[in-house]
Amino acid sequence: MSSEQAGREQQLTDRVVASFDATADPRLKEVMGALTRHLHAFVREVRLTEAEWQQAIAFLTATGHITDERRQEFILLSDVLGASMQTVTVNNQAYENATEATVVGPFFVEGSPLIPLGGDISGGAPGEPCWVEGTVTDTRGAPIPNARIEVWEADDDGLYDVQYGDDRVAARGHFFTDAEGAYRFWAIVPTPYPIPHDGPVGRLLAATGRSPMRASHLHFLVEAAGSRTLVTHIFVRGDELLDRDSVFGVRDSLVKDFEAQPPGTPTPDGRDLGDHRWTRVRFDIVLAPEV
Amino acid sequence: MSSEQAGREQQLTDRVVASFDATADPRLKEVMGALTRHLHAFVREVRLTEAEWQQAIAFLTATGHITDERRQEFILLSDVLGASMQTVTVNNQAYENATEATVVGPFFVEGSPLIPLGGDISGGAPGEPCWVEGTVTDTRGAPIPNARIEVWEADDDGLYDVQYGDDRVAARGHFFTDAEGAYRFWAIVPTPYPIPHDGPVGRLLAATGRSPMRASHLHFLVEAAGSRTLVTHIFVRGDELLDRDSVFGVRDSLVKDFEAQPPGTPTPDGRDLGDHRWTRVRFDIVLAPEV
Ligand SMILES: [Fe+2]
Ligand SMILES: [Fe+2]
Repeated sequence: MSSEQAGREQQLTDRVVASFDATADPRLKEVMGALTRHLHAFVREVRLTEAEWQQAIAFLTATGHITDERRQEFILLSDVLGASMQTVTVNNQAYENATEATVVGPFFVEGSPLIPLGGDISGGAPGEPCWVEGTVTDTRGAPIPNARIEVWEADDDGLYDVQYGDDRVAARGHFFTDAEGAYRFWAIVPTPYPIPHDGPVGRLLAATGRSPMRASHLHFLVEAAGSRTLVTHIFVRGDELLDRDSVFGVRDSLVKDFEAQPPGTPTPDGRDLGDHRWTRVRFDIVLAPEV
Repeated sequence: MSSEQAGREQQLTDRVVASFDATADPRLKEVMGALTRHLHAFVREVRLTEAEWQQAIAFLTATGHITDERRQEFILLSDVLGASMQTVTVNNQAYENATEATVVGPFFVEGSPLIPLGGDISGGAPGEPCWVEGTVTDTRGAPIPNARIEVWEADDDGLYDVQYGDDRVAARGHFFTDAEGAYRFWAIVPTPYPIPHDGPVGRLLAATGRSPMRASHLHFLVEAAGSRTLVTHIFVRGDELLDRDSVFGVRDSLVKDFEAQPPGTPTPDGRDLGDHRWTRVRFDIVLAPEV
């Protein structure tokens, strides 16, 4: 490419950036200027053809048209491009030994049931019983009593309760740590599930040889006065999807040992599971201080 | 920011780029890798907050929902970010003295009427009569006979025919150069008009202190066997909007002298305009060879 051509392209970028000079909100001005520079750098680097530009417009249009109150294809797009996880990474910088964050995902809903400590969040969702226990502490190891922990997960059919389209509430709940900062509850062993892939994002994944599957995980949202709110998952050590999670949510520190117990093994709380297998996992949560 | 944090962010970007490794189409792999890198660089540079990410999702959702067969808000978004013009710039590199290209815009439609040379394309659209003439040549000055020229423009009310929602056809037409490569036609003097600004893109322009107005222009699409197809406009010298065209379509070489003629000045073709003012402009078009 000639330097004259490069100059024409750079001059155009500069002119668009300058068009935001009169923006009243300085943060909006900064964001729009940076968006312009990176968008133009992309178009220039790949020498985007006019046919490809048309395809991009058609892709965004289809993404907009499938999106409604129940289906958020733009979030899925952000997820599979790793933009959601990069935003989480930028906003949850590593802090000493604090537990790492990951994506919230689309299946959190307000109003989950309050479950007593040691209770069962499954609400009848099909799956193998899983005992989950741990503590919530600050970065110096001091227990945090009365921390609010919310958990949610897909069932053995790979679906969250809200995906059934009826009014069921299952495999979600919240509870509070005890005076020693400890918690414990029954859940089900998480299993892999695909993100919705019958739309434009699914077609993009197919065209790029990528799987829509998420590594098995159990969602946590942990809140305590004076601490930074933590949104995270725990993953299952040994899951073959750990290195190709479709939304890039896996962090090594969040992979936990889910220990399968032979049928008949006594349960921690004396619950009688008869001949059923069950699993246990420990997740000790460390909260960073509030900024 | 710590180098540890920078490493975490870069590692995530690298992992997303690598997720496209199995893409069968090498061009799609290249485009998705570059899109990922530039998107992540944007998120990292501005330290995008989670609230801003939510706003971006909501903006794209609204942009998708207003888009239908008649309204293309994603094209408007591309236009006001200069991405459309940058794509034109990348795909229409300067070639010797060839006439420069600019954006096609959303108002081209197939099936415009064939107008005899010297005829009137206005079709009754309100506006001051404007005589347009010139030649089509190659870059060595050789005339190109039988080149197809299509022109379209907004009327004095700032609207293209297709925006009225009835079946009118006005202020658009096509014709062919004569044996000397010359052309001539009556049109109307172009006037400024706003891009549609009652949607998300209009709200973005308002929030950033930008005007939705386009500098006055007349669209040209010129096609000839053996030549690179040219999509361009001509602009009106002296128009105060030239340096703040909302879609960045202006190029200095496309700004032309529209010469106002006092009422009663004889017209080039003897047309009787009575007491009306009229204007004339010359636009000599040079086509690059087909690549
Ligand atoms: Fe999930
Ligand atoms: Fe136009």
